[in-house]
Amino acid sequence: MEVTVGLIGLGNVGQGTLQILTENAKSITEKLGFPLTVKAVCSRTVESKKIACPSSVIRTVNWREVVAHPGIDIVVEAIGGTATARSIIEGALGQRKSVVTANKELMALRGAELWSLANANGVNIAMEASVAGGIPIHTVLREGIAGDKVVELYGILNGTSNFILTEIEKSKAAFDSVLAEAQQLGYAEADPSADVDGLDARSKLAILAALAFGEDLKPSDIYTEGIRRVMPVDFQYAHQLKHTIRLLCLARQTEDGLVLSVRPSLIPRDAILANVTGAYNAIWIRGLYGEDTFYYGRGAGSKPTGVAVVSDLMRVAREIRFGSPDRVSPFAHERLGAYKPLPIPTQKLPYYLRFRVEDKAGIIATLATILAKHNIGIDAVLQLPREDWRDLPFVVTTEPAREQAIRDALIEIRSADFLIEPPFAMPMQRGF
Amino acid sequence: MEVTVGLIGLGNVGQGTLQILTENAKSITEKLGFPLTVKAVCSRTVESKKIACPSSVIRTVNWREVVAHPGIDIVVEAIGGTATARSIIEGALGQRKSVVTANKELMALRGAELWSLANANGVNIAMEASVAGGIPIHTVLREGIAGDKVVELYGILNGTSNFILTEIEKSKAAFDSVLAEAQQLGYAEADPSADVDGLDARSKLAILAALAFGEDLKPSDIYTEGIRRVMPVDFQYAHQLKHTIRLLCLARQTEDGLVLSVRPSLIPRDAILANVTGAYNAIWIRGLYGEDTFYYGRGAGSKPTGVAVVSDLMRVAREIRFGSPDRVSPFAHERLGAYKPLPIPTQKLPYYLRFRVEDKAGIIATLATILAKHNIGIDAVLQLPREDWRDLPFVVTTEPAREQAIRDALIEIRSADFLIEPPFAMPMQRGF
Repeated sequence: MEVTVGLIGLGNVGQGTLQILTENAKSITEKLGFPLTVKAVCSRTVESKKIACPSSVIRTVNWREVVAHPGIDIVVEAIGGTATARSIIEGALGQRKSVVTANKELMALRGAELWSLANANGVNIAMEASVAGGIPIHTVLREGIAGDKVVELYGILNGTSNFILTEIEKSKAAFDSVLAEAQQLGYAEADPSADVDGLDARSKLAILAALAFGEDLKPSDIYTEGIRRVMPVDFQYAHQLKHTIRLLCLARQTEDGLVLSVRPSLIPRDAILANVTGAYNAIWIRGLYGEDTFYYGRGAGSKPTGVAVVSDLMRVAREIRFGSPDRVSPFAHERLGAYKPLPIPTQKLPYYLRFRVEDKAGIIATLATILAKHNIGIDAVLQLPREDWRDLPFVVTTEPAREQAIRDALIEIRSADFLIEPPFAMPMQRGF
Repeated sequence: MEVTVGLIGLGNVGQGTLQILTENAKSITEKLGFPLTVKAVCSRTVESKKIACPSSVIRTVNWREVVAHPGIDIVVEAIGGTATARSIIEGALGQRKSVVTANKELMALRGAELWSLANANGVNIAMEASVAGGIPIHTVLREGIAGDKVVELYGILNGTSNFILTEIEKSKAAFDSVLAEAQQLGYAEADPSADVDGLDARSKLAILAALAFGEDLKPSDIYTEGIRRVMPVDFQYAHQLKHTIRLLCLARQTEDGLVLSVRPSLIPRDAILANVTGAYNAIWIRGLYGEDTFYYGRGAGSKPTGVAVVSDLMRVAREIRFGSPDRVSPFAHERLGAYKPLPIPTQKLPYYLRFRVEDKAGIIATLATILAKHNIGIDAVLQLPREDWRDLPFVVTTEPAREQAIRDALIEIRSADFLIEPPFAMPMQRGF
């Protein structure tokens, strides 16, 4: 009667998964009508781990043992990365075992391919935990609003960078010192690049956009810019404009194609997304029929991500016991070619342009001339009072303009002799 | 290859469903791998309706024809009410047809029973559309966070009363005039009782709480109070306390049992729930493992609710084609008896008590004496400046106290000769 699980990887996610499967076993059994039993756990350091499960559970350092074990129905891949993880998943699918994975990087790169392999073997691959840990956004897209046609999707998908941004906003401290603090608190990795340079968010957006729009797209299709350049003064200016700043992930259908980007953006302060602070994630979806829906929760964490893994396990286990209703790749639907990823957004948006300059005469005149040449109207020039007149950060907001015009103008502006560093540009996003 | 649908009821929800099934057919077919075809539509006024579907579709005024038709796989019940709807659902299940319903009233009263009937016939009954139309909250509870253990659930589940409350907040107009306006705009029914007296919200909370906690509970287990007594001045006082007022649906596990209520409540103004304005719905869930998640969207409307119906149809259609993984009643899991509905909350909360009085000496002294007698501490006494000293609404906020003590004190206070009307009490809810 039972369905059995082999768990590979006992880091954060693996441990959360094991804890929930163990502690919450009675509830899980009652919801399923049969038990979901852990048969094996695998970790390079399995000997030294405290594992709260019966002694009958196989403990091994060799993942091949789990993948090959004939008594295991579902393999959980919770080691991350793209090399060994891929071997584990392909190995398990080849053995006709279903797979549950938390691996955003691998699924963003090879999701469609791995799904095909699963299908060819008559099994499933589930990945709720790969995006926005605590938010069941895959289930929502795959089932909850399956009847709708998604038009736009906005997300805050990286908890670490959201934590850092909201700390800069609160404490007015600089990026470097807030990052150091986040690293001490364990919110940021020793190598923070994946988080603060937007790469983690990019993988997650690639997966969500593929599910939402059914297009064949890759992380490299997504324009990506991290948060390293956001300064405390940007929040002051943003507040003056009744906005705040978030690392916004965006996927939007336009007549020209699919706009995809991960970049620091101004968003209205009264938008629900602006209330997403600290290590939380959120996703705003606009459907053609269902209109706006919004989803919020923990972006990561051992137990919230564990809930995603366990919920996937329950669904896959049901399918194993009673038949498997997933036969069409969530990556492949609607591959109509109607919405190709756009290399650059064509929609017009207002922009926030921040300049750090030496105090010289004629700066505004020079900027205004260059912007005018590219048909970019100026909406406002903002300058906070400062005692120190060197290194003067000031801001120009523009009338709605195309990204291409902004980029062209900024290239021209970069050659001006009064700039201390290249200009910093953020779109001002609306509509949620 | 196709799976076929018979649609009974062509009101708001039925028309939205039909529109989506027709317009979005290509996407639906690609997501499913097979077509979902409308075979029959039924309405008492079917002759006079404009129906945008092929002439091959059966049009009938007789629902029995749909239920009995051997070529129909799934019946959509979209007529509402509890009498004919029940006959339709029982008839369809008896014919071994799965059912998709938007009927909150019937499912709140007889959900578990109808699920058992479906199971006995080897078919399914799906009801995403019955609660919070545009928000896929059933899918979330049944699948997305199935591995978690829900501890608390807060919701704004009635769009009409939320629209009225936020209009009172914005315009400072009285309940009666805002209701009249809402009726003119079509946001409120000619008989508004189900919405403004909390009965609609109560049915929805009964369904959600049953799914979330797996307890056997009925709408009559839920303490319910509508919004008729909320005055514009209550918003002024609430704002002074940095709160706002919403018709809050609440289900919470406590050591003593399950607290269930639908009532106007003060909630902190910086809570995400306080941003839910107009005809929107929202649900806040706290899980033991997944912590906080939040879901927001349209509460009703032809197309948002249609998305829920169509998404349910897609899931049920997949099950028909590939096997049916739902074998355990979503109403029946975890029926452990551990969390019985409580007749009255035992948790201590601060309360907002509003009094309308004739201006007499010694009013505060009398109130304070009675409250003290019931061990209720006073936190603050608030009184807005008024030109008119008759009919003086003023507010007492209390230290955290038990509901029972508050009720007892208010009964005693009601006999005071200075009251123009009975005191109005709202709990001040925290923690989301």
